[in-house]
Amino acid sequence: MGYEEFTIEGRNAVIEAYRSGREIDKLYVLDGCQDGPVMTIKREAKKKGTLVKFVTKERLDQLSETGKHQGVIACAAAYAYAEVGDMLEAAKRKGEAPFLFLLDNIEDPHNLGAIIRTANLSGAHGVIIPKNRAVGLTATVAKTSAGAVNYTPVARVTNLARTIEDLKKEGIWFVCADMGGTVMYDLDLKGPIGLVIGSEGEGVGRLTKEKCDMAAAIPMQGDIDSLNASVAAGVLAYEIVRQRLKG
Amino acid sequence: MGYEEFTIEGRNAVIEAYRSGREIDKLYVLDGCQDGPVMTIKREAKKKGTLVKFVTKERLDQLSETGKHQGVIACAAAYAYAEVGDMLEAAKRKGEAPFLFLLDNIEDPHNLGAIIRTANLSGAHGVIIPKNRAVGLTATVAKTSAGAVNYTPVARVTNLARTIEDLKKEGIWFVCADMGGTVMYDLDLKGPIGLVIGSEGEGVGRLTKEKCDMAAAIPMQGDIDSLNASVAAGVLAYEIVRQRLKG
Repeated sequence: MGYEEFTIEGRNAVIEAYRSGREIDKLYVLDGCQDGPVMTIKREAKKKGTLVKFVTKERLDQLSETGKHQGVIACAAAYAYAEVGDMLEAAKRKGEAPFLFLLDNIEDPHNLGAIIRTANLSGAHGVIIPKNRAVGLTATVAKTSAGAVNYTPVARVTNLARTIEDLKKEGIWFVCADMGGTVMYDLDLKGPIGLVIGSEGEGVGRLTKEKCDMAAAIPMQGDIDSLNASVAAGVLAYEIVRQRLKG
Repeated sequence: MGYEEFTIEGRNAVIEAYRSGREIDKLYVLDGCQDGPVMTIKREAKKKGTLVKFVTKERLDQLSETGKHQGVIACAAAYAYAEVGDMLEAAKRKGEAPFLFLLDNIEDPHNLGAIIRTANLSGAHGVIIPKNRAVGLTATVAKTSAGAVNYTPVARVTNLARTIEDLKKEGIWFVCADMGGTVMYDLDLKGPIGLVIGSEGEGVGRLTKEKCDMAAAIPMQGDIDSLNASVAAGVLAYEIVRQRLKG
């Protein structure tokens, strides 16, 4: 699971977690269960926009560590999420053009951790991830980020394409990693920018890609298909750094 | 372990593996054991330069999957190693200036896999790793390399500093990743080059660093110490690619 330390099991514990304002990444609920407390939890989950998965009792038993899940298991985030607005504020406060990372469904916690680490060191103001499917701020992510989660804000949004549209109104340009794009050295990446990185295997989704202003390709000379997602993010981020440094 | 598929247990199986020419990354032997077959194995290990670890029976029991280790467990490489000379040959054949990666004790198989992947796509002619301590070509490495181990040769050497000295005679310049070095954009990285990457945490070892002609720093603006090793390797490799492309 990778969530071990932050799994909350049982009806009261999960209701408690919601009431205390704890961030829940994902909620597993026994399919078809209509009991009062479970209905309360489902309402809270809806209110907070938690991703809810309806599963069989067998699956819950498998996920459970205490053996006392009572039909609900919540996966809590190891770290609190930020808001996209806070990132823009931070850029403004520092007098810098906004530089954001947007990750389209990175599922590997090691990659997410390494990317947050890169975002921190390349001077980005934040990392935006989608709520659905993608991995959240688990303990593994926090660990592989080498502490960067403590400094670089991470926000979760419902719809990445819509977030891009909103941020365009703030004057931010978006560039996505795309093997079919323009070689990155030939693009102007100096202004307020959002770097969009796709998942391993699938790359940036079509809807998200359509919202981007530019598509950047990393020159490739070898025999295989693509770089590791966190390496590709690093190479592109540092092309942005290079262009910004030379002014 | 990460070695599961390639663990060879028991005296006959290990002797057999050596005789068949199978590459052994590491050998675990029961400490103090002087039995004939075990002595034979130790002789073979010495001949082949295998890293031998003398361990307790408890440790062997723990490592064993079959429960029948008879005092010896060998970790076999998932892929065959190449020779450094082959890499120079390949560069010559392609009419390219040699471009090599040298990894100073990368211990995380995911990082090694990702770096071999980067070496392949950045057009490097090979990856050189030390025999001692570092991780070898395990199944995990092969998997995270996304197939790159099939194309990019990986050589193991006894002493990285000596290999650098030998390769300098072939006209290769060496640049090591070093936070205290010159910003990478200000170095000339266009000729025949060896890129030296250190381990996570410790960086490039002193002896190895002293042999390098240049020390390259990736500009860092954040709060944490360093990039993930495979991301740093990718960023530096692509600075070499950029300089080579622009001629």
